[in-house]
Amino acid sequence: MGAILDGNRFVLGTCYYPEHWPKELWREDLERMLASGIEVVRIAEFAWSKVEPTEGNFTYSFFDEFLDLAEEVGMKVIFCTPTATPPAWLTEKYPEVLNADINGVLYRHGARRHYNYNSPVYQELSKRIVEKFASHYASRPCIIGWQIDNEINCEKNVFYSGSDSKAFRVFLKDKYESLEALNEAWGTAFWNQTYTDWEEIHVPRKTYSDSTNPHEVLDYTRFISDSARCFAKMQSDIIRKYLKPGDFVTTNGLFGNLDNHQMTKESLDFMTYDSYPNFAYCLDAYSNAPGEMKDRKWSRNLSEVRSLSPIFGIMEQQSGANGWNTHMEAPTPRPGQMTLWTMQSVAHGADYVSYFRWRTCTMGTEIYWHGILDYSSRDNRRIAEVKDIHEKLQGMKEMAGSIYEAKVGIIKDYDNVWDAQLDVWHGRVDNASQKALFAALQLSHTPFDYVYINDASDAEELKKYQVLFYPHATIMTKEREAVLRAYVEAGGTLVIGCRSGYKNITGRCVMDKLPGLLSDLTGTDIPEYSFIAPDAGKVTVKWDDREFEASVFADLLQPIGAGKQEASYTSDYYAGSGALVSNVVGKGKAYYYGSAFNTESARVFLEKLDVISPYRDVVSVPESCEIAIRKKGDDRFLFVLNYDKNPAQIELLRKGTDLYTGKEVSGQMEIKGYQTLVVKL
Amino acid sequence: MGAILDGNRFVLGTCYYPEHWPKELWREDLERMLASGIEVVRIAEFAWSKVEPTEGNFTYSFFDEFLDLAEEVGMKVIFCTPTATPPAWLTEKYPEVLNADINGVLYRHGARRHYNYNSPVYQELSKRIVEKFASHYASRPCIIGWQIDNEINCEKNVFYSGSDSKAFRVFLKDKYESLEALNEAWGTAFWNQTYTDWEEIHVPRKTYSDSTNPHEVLDYTRFISDSARCFAKMQSDIIRKYLKPGDFVTTNGLFGNLDNHQMTKESLDFMTYDSYPNFAYCLDAYSNAPGEMKDRKWSRNLSEVRSLSPIFGIMEQQSGANGWNTHMEAPTPRPGQMTLWTMQSVAHGADYVSYFRWRTCTMGTEIYWHGILDYSSRDNRRIAEVKDIHEKLQGMKEMAGSIYEAKVGIIKDYDNVWDAQLDVWHGRVDNASQKALFAALQLSHTPFDYVYINDASDAEELKKYQVLFYPHATIMTKEREAVLRAYVEAGGTLVIGCRSGYKNITGRCVMDKLPGLLSDLTGTDIPEYSFIAPDAGKVTVKWDDREFEASVFADLLQPIGAGKQEASYTSDYYAGSGALVSNVVGKGKAYYYGSAFNTESARVFLEKLDVISPYRDVVSVPESCEIAIRKKGDDRFLFVLNYDKNPAQIELLRKGTDLYTGKEVSGQMEIKGYQTLVVKL
Amino acid sequence: MGAILDGNRFVLGTCYYPEHWPKELWREDLERMLASGIEVVRIAEFAWSKVEPTEGNFTYSFFDEFLDLAEEVGMKVIFCTPTATPPAWLTEKYPEVLNADINGVLYRHGARRHYNYNSPVYQELSKRIVEKFASHYASRPCIIGWQIDNEINCEKNVFYSGSDSKAFRVFLKDKYESLEALNEAWGTAFWNQTYTDWEEIHVPRKTYSDSTNPHEVLDYTRFISDSARCFAKMQSDIIRKYLKPGDFVTTNGLFGNLDNHQMTKESLDFMTYDSYPNFAYCLDAYSNAPGEMKDRKWSRNLSEVRSLSPIFGIMEQQSGANGWNTHMEAPTPRPGQMTLWTMQSVAHGADYVSYFRWRTCTMGTEIYWHGILDYSSRDNRRIAEVKDIHEKLQGMKEMAGSIYEAKVGIIKDYDNVWDAQLDVWHGRVDNASQKALFAALQLSHTPFDYVYINDASDAEELKKYQVLFYPHATIMTKEREAVLRAYVEAGGTLVIGCRSGYKNITGRCVMDKLPGLLSDLTGTDIPEYSFIAPDAGKVTVKWDDREFEASVFADLLQPIGAGKQEASYTSDYYAGSGALVSNVVGKGKAYYYGSAFNTESARVFLEKLDVISPYRDVVSVPESCEIAIRKKGDDRFLFVLNYDKNPAQIELLRKGTDLYTGKEVSGQMEIKGYQTLVVKL
Repeated sequence: MGAILDGNRFVLGTCYYPEHWPKELWREDLERMLASGIEVVRIAEFAWSKVEPTEGNFTYSFFDEFLDLAEEVGMKVIFCTPTATPPAWLTEKYPEVLNADINGVLYRHGARRHYNYNSPVYQELSKRIVEKFASHYASRPCIIGWQIDNEINCEKNVFYSGSDSKAFRVFLKDKYESLEALNEAWGTAFWNQTYTDWEEIHVPRKTYSDSTNPHEVLDYTRFISDSARCFAKMQSDIIRKYLKPGDFVTTNGLFGNLDNHQMTKESLDFMTYDSYPNFAYCLDAYSNAPGEMKDRKWSRNLSEVRSLSPIFGIMEQQSGANGWNTHMEAPTPRPGQMTLWTMQSVAHGADYVSYFRWRTCTMGTEIYWHGILDYSSRDNRRIAEVKDIHEKLQGMKEMAGSIYEAKVGIIKDYDNVWDAQLDVWHGRVDNASQKALFAALQLSHTPFDYVYINDASDAEELKKYQVLFYPHATIMTKEREAVLRAYVEAGGTLVIGCRSGYKNITGRCVMDKLPGLLSDLTGTDIPEYSFIAPDAGKVTVKWDDREFEASVFADLLQPIGAGKQEASYTSDYYAGSGALVSNVVGKGKAYYYGSAFNTESARVFLEKLDVISPYRDVVSVPESCEIAIRKKGDDRFLFVLNYDKNPAQIELLRKGTDLYTGKEVSGQMEIKGYQTLVVKL
Repeated sequence: MGAILDGNRFVLGTCYYPEHWPKELWREDLERMLASGIEVVRIAEFAWSKVEPTEGNFTYSFFDEFLDLAEEVGMKVIFCTPTATPPAWLTEKYPEVLNADINGVLYRHGARRHYNYNSPVYQELSKRIVEKFASHYASRPCIIGWQIDNEINCEKNVFYSGSDSKAFRVFLKDKYESLEALNEAWGTAFWNQTYTDWEEIHVPRKTYSDSTNPHEVLDYTRFISDSARCFAKMQSDIIRKYLKPGDFVTTNGLFGNLDNHQMTKESLDFMTYDSYPNFAYCLDAYSNAPGEMKDRKWSRNLSEVRSLSPIFGIMEQQSGANGWNTHMEAPTPRPGQMTLWTMQSVAHGADYVSYFRWRTCTMGTEIYWHGILDYSSRDNRRIAEVKDIHEKLQGMKEMAGSIYEAKVGIIKDYDNVWDAQLDVWHGRVDNASQKALFAALQLSHTPFDYVYINDASDAEELKKYQVLFYPHATIMTKEREAVLRAYVEAGGTLVIGCRSGYKNITGRCVMDKLPGLLSDLTGTDIPEYSFIAPDAGKVTVKWDDREFEASVFADLLQPIGAGKQEASYTSDYYAGSGALVSNVVGKGKAYYYGSAFNTESARVFLEKLDVISPYRDVVSVPESCEIAIRKKGDDRFLFVLNYDKNPAQIELLRKGTDLYTGKEVSGQMEIKGYQTLVVKL
Repeated sequence: MGAILDGNRFVLGTCYYPEHWPKELWREDLERMLASGIEVVRIAEFAWSKVEPTEGNFTYSFFDEFLDLAEEVGMKVIFCTPTATPPAWLTEKYPEVLNADINGVLYRHGARRHYNYNSPVYQELSKRIVEKFASHYASRPCIIGWQIDNEINCEKNVFYSGSDSKAFRVFLKDKYESLEALNEAWGTAFWNQTYTDWEEIHVPRKTYSDSTNPHEVLDYTRFISDSARCFAKMQSDIIRKYLKPGDFVTTNGLFGNLDNHQMTKESLDFMTYDSYPNFAYCLDAYSNAPGEMKDRKWSRNLSEVRSLSPIFGIMEQQSGANGWNTHMEAPTPRPGQMTLWTMQSVAHGADYVSYFRWRTCTMGTEIYWHGILDYSSRDNRRIAEVKDIHEKLQGMKEMAGSIYEAKVGIIKDYDNVWDAQLDVWHGRVDNASQKALFAALQLSHTPFDYVYINDASDAEELKKYQVLFYPHATIMTKEREAVLRAYVEAGGTLVIGCRSGYKNITGRCVMDKLPGLLSDLTGTDIPEYSFIAPDAGKVTVKWDDREFEASVFADLLQPIGAGKQEASYTSDYYAGSGALVSNVVGKGKAYYYGSAFNTESARVFLEKLDVISPYRDVVSVPESCEIAIRKKGDDRFLFVLNYDKNPAQIELLRKGTDLYTGKEVSGQMEIKGYQTLVVKL
């Protein structure tokens, strides 16, 4: 990792497609990149045919020639395995390698990622091409690292091929050993679903009302994640046989139905992220609704990346308008936005930023996915902005390797994430709460982390957070309850929202009083519950002197044990029922809140629990700006990012050094529209 | 039927799934039901695998054990045939039993009702399992009746398997005898559709613009109805071989593409209905639009059930929130709504009410379809409400067997119902009128019946109605015209709406002057007609001193024969044309109205024909309440049902006995939100 | 063509289906037509089975009998080939003749046009039936011409059968000769799409995000057009072997994915159009949005027809409500609208108008597609209107053969039309501009022509236009640039809109500075461009004293060479950048406008270029009326068409003869709602 995440400086890169351009242009392009501050190119992720133009015939000269040039001009290279786009000869000869829709109709050649992970043929041919790539190219001095495939689980993250059904059976036999255990876990007594032979089991197929057994779908999602991870690991294992010392293995994300944490742990040196905040401005996607965070929402994604690798790379950073010929019509980033979005990535921990892409492609689906340069490669405003960013980052070197600082965490786990995807009752509360918590934290300038747990988690990881939200812990296990309990006992404050604890790890509902395994920890009993009816009007909650609205659902609470009713509903037939119960456990406190969060209620929690706006003594900024702090030793680096087209008035309450200019700054300042400020405090 | 519809008392039941719970819980559950006033359980409708776990291997012990217990504790049982959910081994081995979509893609295992009625294999295996169920269990003393399959034609009521095409050909040969006759009936000269071989005919398949020949689709719908009925009759015939004296055969409905009247007549002792008024409050379905009747709309469905069996059972009555994991997000019924919806059923003639279900399922698609008890089975508000209902019904015993009373009828026939389904011109007027007539009748407290007719109907059945509406008799036959004529001649008042009489029984348009076979009866000619153009603005009709809006369509009328122009259009180019013609025939009168009904015009008709609010001298109630009268001998029983969350002020203009309290009541009273009142007059 | 487009008179016709009615009605129908002024019937387009009821068995008597009668009563006949609807026996025996959806699911018997053009079986059977039809019937004296098939490319204009893939490969081999050339043209280096064998190439199939290679789709669209044209030519060639002298060959259109110009040139004597302006009033389609042109939009279609044949026929003219049983719910045309829509056709150059259809069909999908007569064939308002139209046209005889007059043209070419269909960035600007230009021209009473060009075009064709708009010449070739240049050099004024010149003929983007091949001609450079961002608000342009809004896109312009910046953006970050550049070339001037057109900006261009309202010294009419001029020698014939239901006040500024009445007219006049005026000036 020495070449790009060394903790000593920031590095810029770009994505380059030697196969798209006449070789005569290569030298000019590479030299111009270097002159612009770009010192790394990623190549070859869609170039299988350049090395294996027909089955079993390998030829290396194309990239050899490119790498020779890279070494000559001094360009570093991230090399990719090409498995995201199988050649036409491959899918034509072996259609079983293709993914299918739920009706079994195959997805055909022409797009990307249309293969399935479980086809033995594809696995065999992929192994061979990765082995060929790695064994031939990995020793090249200009190469600094490898990207596996491209955007694993992008495009589609559900798979319905015949190979998937076969592999699913293996996965299930391994997990359950007997059909009896599987029938019990999946509750197949319901609707007479009982299986009497393993061959009767398939990946989801077409059913009435798309009503595949939900416990099966949960296992199926785990199976997809496993399939993708194993496919990545197969490649990582091969690459590592040939990897030069100091070179890294990564892949670019983040996509769904995939345990990115486990994949990172077992196959990668670090995760890279593809950041396209301009999606928010596509003509058909734009929303100016209240609470809509637009490009600032990408800070939520960057927080997800931080949960994988506190210091990470951006493999693809927006550098022009995005668009396909078939959909997505996006404007060109306005002057300043490219810098803004780069600094957004850096603020969250990106020490490597690679722009997608150098030249805009002149052919195919992505002719409107603009790179730094337009079709003509003329000098333009955006390459000028890249040079300016490069200069800014030069002044920020000492910050490299510093870590984003947060005292608040939001707990997540893949079981609940995946359950909320398929279960609309779970999804509705979770979507509302996740969106509201993010907005409340962002707008109140309260930095936070996502914290992923599983049955093997160590409570130690949690203890650095003063407050943890676990919005809807629908699925709960004894192991996780123990982790949470240990966190609270040690002095932590845990806030759990409605609909928690009513499912076990298979997604089956527990027959205990709710919130099940969380009753004791939260001192809470739930004798009754309901969606807030569509004719209910505004349902309110009173917590001491604060009254706010409940959202989506109402668990009607009663304290048990040492539990204390902190807040009550004040409307509809729930009036008087408990809406919030607290429970002192050890040195800490656990709260159970009976509803989903909205921005208003989330803000009340942040205030009441005294974690809101931790930097209010450092800087005063309006809601329209994000702030972030990266910390390294005793140094703190403050980012102020203005997402608005209008200028913002801020006040720096301490003296600091503006890292763009090197000058001391403090007091009242104006941040222009889309501008950013980076201050060493 | 002695056990539940004996005319002497009301009986409560519930739906129970022994296969979902540890056997250890069975006794506790049954005893607790009995203690709550529940004396019947329905079981086994999704339990094929419990008796035939693998092909041809039968084992009866599971339900033997349950029935032993039922007999021990004194619980009555409605036993079901299990054909709604074929076992996994069956559909895996014989995929031809599955239903398919119109493209031929099979619907797979995991949901329910995914079989097709016409598969010889499924018919054979169904016969065998029904024979096994009936022969083994029917003699058990605790069994009081049988339910065939479950919700016939629910989930999907169109079938596109290969077996369906084969059976469709048999159905058509039987109906038409020759291809010439079929070609003529289907008008295949249009678009060169002529068939020259029976094998060229298929159930509808994928066509451009989904434009299968409409006359074929009409026959296809009749074919589906036939297929479903025959499947039910096959089971009924088997069950009746083993049925204990006094036991009944039923099934639960009501679903589309099925002649429920014929099925009831040939296979059932009575129909049972599954009533879920809370569907109106699902988050994604709720509408508060003007004229939206919400849960009160279920009275329309109950009126349909009454047309099949004046006294009937509710096999599944809402007892908690409804929801699937994949869709439907419904609130828990508010305090009182469960009673309200039970009394809504009772008001219309339900003497048996069975709650779906006892415990909420902890697994599968229906984890959110709440029963009386929640997952934990703890005591809760809803089981308290069941006990309270039980007590209320104890006081109402003398009403059992009484009949809903109505002087207004709405005529329906399956040919027009099915034609309106597929013909958007027919459907648009019919949907508008049916909705408007129901709303006007409900809101004006004018009880009504649905009256189904066909070519074999007897005019006697109609004579008890003072006024009959036949909103859009698009398809008309000589036989039906004669029935209507006999009704009018005998003194009845018949109101027919626009677009009547222009199709024959095959759905082909007649080449006569319109309204075709109805011209003479109504004294009406229609020289011109049109949809009301979208730029027409408000089109008005004047009838004596009343002016109201026309809806959707305008037949421009001229009286012929003894016809009299009662009302005229007063706007657009139709101004001056006839909008309503009356014709005295014998002792009665027939009206032809040139438009579809809206709530306003429907109300004018009720007033002008003097049938509105027949109980206005008995009780004065606001629009928000439904009233119903059940009659038995000289006794009349008045129901007042408040669907609103706010209290209603009513005035009882006669003295009566409140059957909940046994006390005499009269004069001004307040009915609280969701409350009900039952008074013996 | 002598019989209907002879330049001496107007002829009325109708569409008749002898196979739909008892033969006993034929004579009555034909005689009644003649009595109403109808002297031509079109027959047999869906009647394959009447001549070949089973495979290879031919029988001619049905139409022989009809033609005998036609000749007896003096009715002229347009005979059709029946290939639009293959018989049931054909598609059942040879399913390979069917079209399929993109997943390969076949479209089945029952609708029309469900065949594919490239099936060798269908080609063979079509050739045979056409040969049989033509050889047997073409000599009949009553026949005056032939219609090939029916509405070629209607219903579906994409084809995905196996035969299509095979034929596509032949088309591509013919076009590219080598896979290397194809790979280059399609840019298959993108996403590793490179083809190594012709068999790997297919018509588009199911891909992720429907993202088939756009250059392939462009070629595929050309291939569809070719396939349709060849199918028509195959028939035309056969018919012409048997055609009587003076008889014509036509087909009815216009439909997409078809080069109608090439088809007309190679296969037809002239094109006929099917005109149904009442589509605008379907209940589910009606829009009253500002700028919505409703039925007047059909003048845009008629302008397209004029670009094919300045004098043409209407093969199907709206004569009643339109509708299918499955969708389309349209009102009956109001009194006057049928005349209005007929005169709309005539105003644009229709000398033959044939009403669809005589009697309304009583069966099948089109029971609501009303003809002149209703189901009963009684006399009605619409047949009275036909007679009145006939009389009006009698007075207009001298106008026959006259030509629509326009000084403004809008340039189109199929490459850009098809590219805009599949490329949403191209489509969005083009749709906006085409709609706006039409509206601005119509509302300002500025007649215009569509002018289609291709690489073989001659600049002479363009020189009759004072001003030509080429709204978005995205695809540009050297040949076309030369044609445009020659037009400008000769004194023409050319206006080109944004996004021009950035693609080559394969749809690949050029690597030149933009607008590429158009830079020199327009004196324009485009250093930067963007969609107007959804949060941009109103983006304005200032041109001298006029300020107006830009639309959709902003090319930021800089003049080069002799170019002159005529207008600038005045808002957002584009403020100050060029919005309009002009360039004097020879005697003319070329303009490059950096945005798409809206009604406001289009009107400013018409004014500034001094071509607006050329007849303002002849007649003064409100926006609600269309005006058109047909010219013959020195005579000019003025049409005023009032599309509104309200009367319009006009002033005729010259004396003329009202051709309906023969009287001299001038000065102030009122045109009633839906009325028309035709004046010889």
